[in-house]
Amino acid sequence: MTTSDDGPRPGDGAAGTPARGRADRTDDAHPPAADAVGAATFRRAWSDLAPVGRAPDGAGYHRFAWTRSDHTLREWFAGQAAARGLDLVTDRAGNQWAWWGDPDARPGVVTGSHLDSVPGGGAFDGPLGVVSAFAAYDVLRARGVRPGRPLGIASFVDEEGARFGVACAGSRLLTGALDPDRARGLRDADGTTMADALRAAGQDPSSLGPDPEALRRVGAFVELHVEQGRGLVHSGDPVGVGRMIWPHGRWRVELRGVANHAGTTPLADRRDPMLDLAAFVQHVRAAALDAGALATVGKVRVEPNGVNAIPSQVTAWLDVRAEDGSAVGDVLAALAAYAPAQESWTSATVLDADLADDVAAALGTAGLGSPRLGTGAGHDAGILAAAGVPTAMLFVRNPSGVSHAPAESADEADCLTGVDALAATLERLVTR
Amino acid sequence: MTTSDDGPRPGDGAAGTPARGRADRTDDAHPPAADAVGAATFRRAWSDLAPVGRAPDGAGYHRFAWTRSDHTLREWFAGQAAARGLDLVTDRAGNQWAWWGDPDARPGVVTGSHLDSVPGGGAFDGPLGVVSAFAAYDVLRARGVRPGRPLGIASFVDEEGARFGVACAGSRLLTGALDPDRARGLRDADGTTMADALRAAGQDPSSLGPDPEALRRVGAFVELHVEQGRGLVHSGDPVGVGRMIWPHGRWRVELRGVANHAGTTPLADRRDPMLDLAAFVQHVRAAALDAGALATVGKVRVEPNGVNAIPSQVTAWLDVRAEDGSAVGDVLAALAAYAPAQESWTSATVLDADLADDVAAALGTAGLGSPRLGTGAGHDAGILAAAGVPTAMLFVRNPSGVSHAPAESADEADCLTGVDALAATLERLVTR
Repeated sequence: MTTSDDGPRPGDGAAGTPARGRADRTDDAHPPAADAVGAATFRRAWSDLAPVGRAPDGAGYHRFAWTRSDHTLREWFAGQAAARGLDLVTDRAGNQWAWWGDPDARPGVVTGSHLDSVPGGGAFDGPLGVVSAFAAYDVLRARGVRPGRPLGIASFVDEEGARFGVACAGSRLLTGALDPDRARGLRDADGTTMADALRAAGQDPSSLGPDPEALRRVGAFVELHVEQGRGLVHSGDPVGVGRMIWPHGRWRVELRGVANHAGTTPLADRRDPMLDLAAFVQHVRAAALDAGALATVGKVRVEPNGVNAIPSQVTAWLDVRAEDGSAVGDVLAALAAYAPAQESWTSATVLDADLADDVAAALGTAGLGSPRLGTGAGHDAGILAAAGVPTAMLFVRNPSGVSHAPAESADEADCLTGVDALAATLERLVTR
Repeated sequence: MTTSDDGPRPGDGAAGTPARGRADRTDDAHPPAADAVGAATFRRAWSDLAPVGRAPDGAGYHRFAWTRSDHTLREWFAGQAAARGLDLVTDRAGNQWAWWGDPDARPGVVTGSHLDSVPGGGAFDGPLGVVSAFAAYDVLRARGVRPGRPLGIASFVDEEGARFGVACAGSRLLTGALDPDRARGLRDADGTTMADALRAAGQDPSSLGPDPEALRRVGAFVELHVEQGRGLVHSGDPVGVGRMIWPHGRWRVELRGVANHAGTTPLADRRDPMLDLAAFVQHVRAAALDAGALATVGKVRVEPNGVNAIPSQVTAWLDVRAEDGSAVGDVLAALAAYAPAQESWTSATVLDADLADDVAAALGTAGLGSPRLGTGAGHDAGILAAAGVPTAMLFVRNPSGVSHAPAESADEADCLTGVDALAATLERLVTR
């Protein structure tokens, strides 16, 4: 059973033992007590976060960078670190790090994700990775694991870019992929700059910038994330291993018409760009089907957008992604007549194959399969990978396949299997 | 030659005599001096109004009710009345009236239109009728006409409804078709109520309401307007006579989908309402063609309207008009599967046939043809007709057929023919 549309509580497994076929495992080296600790941590943390930034009436979460709810989430992260005696560090980009051991002595293994959301987002995209990180840490401590290298838990700021329009802003600033001057000048829908938002949140915007020292501490990064699709539903696995982040880009198409009075202009005399939009939307879908790509028209601007006015112009934004960049190219080629103007482009990010093998081996010892998944969604993991950090991703099954919406969900049993998989992965990486 | 897109000056006829085939007329009872007076008035008034509320770079006019530019236009109207010794009256709806003679002694003949515009509107829709009214008055005075009943010039406030969303607000308030409490509570895009806008403009919102006394003074109403279509281009006439205002209405269609991540949701799993919008726009056009009606999707709202988000919902607004109400019904029937929700409906307004015959007879004595035209656009004339005032409309040829946009135009020669036609009509009505 999955969570209800407006509920952040994973599954109904909260009332019982996650059904993970644990009885079949013969090599169960982990005392059940450790799993119970992980489950308890997971449930308490999930319940802590449930009300933060949650809209009434099942309208999802609104957790945007440097707002009141973001502040509450940052305080929560700091409290979790303090409660465990971890060293809390905030880097020059505003990302939070909780360290077990000294990463300046030797780069550590880091896990984590983000706590912000898209407008009306689900409960899992981001928080699942941060909550699972603390739960996995508690599992390792309960097991008495003695790490040979530091272990870090990270929460990246402004991953969704919902407020200022740049996704993965925290990790991009950290690695230098986002210029701090540009970042400071970004404006939200109310015209507030990121610099002003930082000041309002008690931060010093002048300190914003790349932080090579913070980045150097990251010897490897493992991000656990709810799957944003149904690959694991189809394969029948509760968790999977990331293989790559698809190449993806955004384009803008301008459809120009002739403004005129809707009540007096004969149909034959019209140059109505709304009809061009209709054709464009259908061409986009057809081109995506032909190319085996994902293509979406999710944003539209109509001018003047009056009921009795034939529009003078319609602007449409196009999002295209595919496992293979050439499929994206095929979609664009099919739409060439619309002269799409590129607004952004991110090449394929192939995650670290050796690290993925390590993760798969850890899952194997935990009695789990390890299907390899590509994803069309961008992640902080992709930004770190592009900066040269060996990076892996773990995905947790999402029955609805829905993401960025309240229907985003995961069974609690799968979430706890994710904690287990993450703990096994981290144990392998910090102890070998 | 028509005016340029950003220019309000009618034609290039300003430099010469309007080419109206005047030499063919054998019964020219009017001294040329009177025509020269009308032309001079027209040109000066047009030039006075040209800069008011005009956006730079040919982006059209922005003249909204109870704004700074509206105030300037109201001052201009008052100045024109004062310069001619006419009695200026402002009714309880805010409409302005300039009277020659005492309409409380006997209802008068009124001509006029409005001075406000749609956003980015043309120069002619509205002002052509008010300017032509003053010019026609000056022609009658130059001819020494002695009216047997009062003559009024009217400027209706807020005809376009561009600011508060209700078209013909001034005439509807006057006749009681718009409830004053509802009007006071209407809000503009900034959230300002009409009551606050009135206060800011130095008016008392509590006085807003029906004004039967002002309405009783109107024995007949003749509105001259630029044609919003190309009927007169096709018939080859500079002016025409209104026959009816088409029935018209607005509907809202809700297209519901399932919000999801554009980068991760397989095409087969999507419920994307943007595709429904595309189909709807095409169905609307097909239904309009089948029914011989005008139907337009000019306004759309997409939620959440994010580049990387499959929309959860698209709302589309539908405007349908036809000469025959049953054709509107046919369009709606063809779109029944979309469950359109009616937002407004105005039945056909048949203008006064006797008055139209009078206008046609006056045009005949001025050497002009008088094609009868229907129009899909709403007008204050329609509101007065619905309130029982015998009403006629005169249309002036519009070479582009465009309206509610900067390309709206008329040749100066045709405008002066319009003044001539209006003067002939008024002379006939006030002297018989």
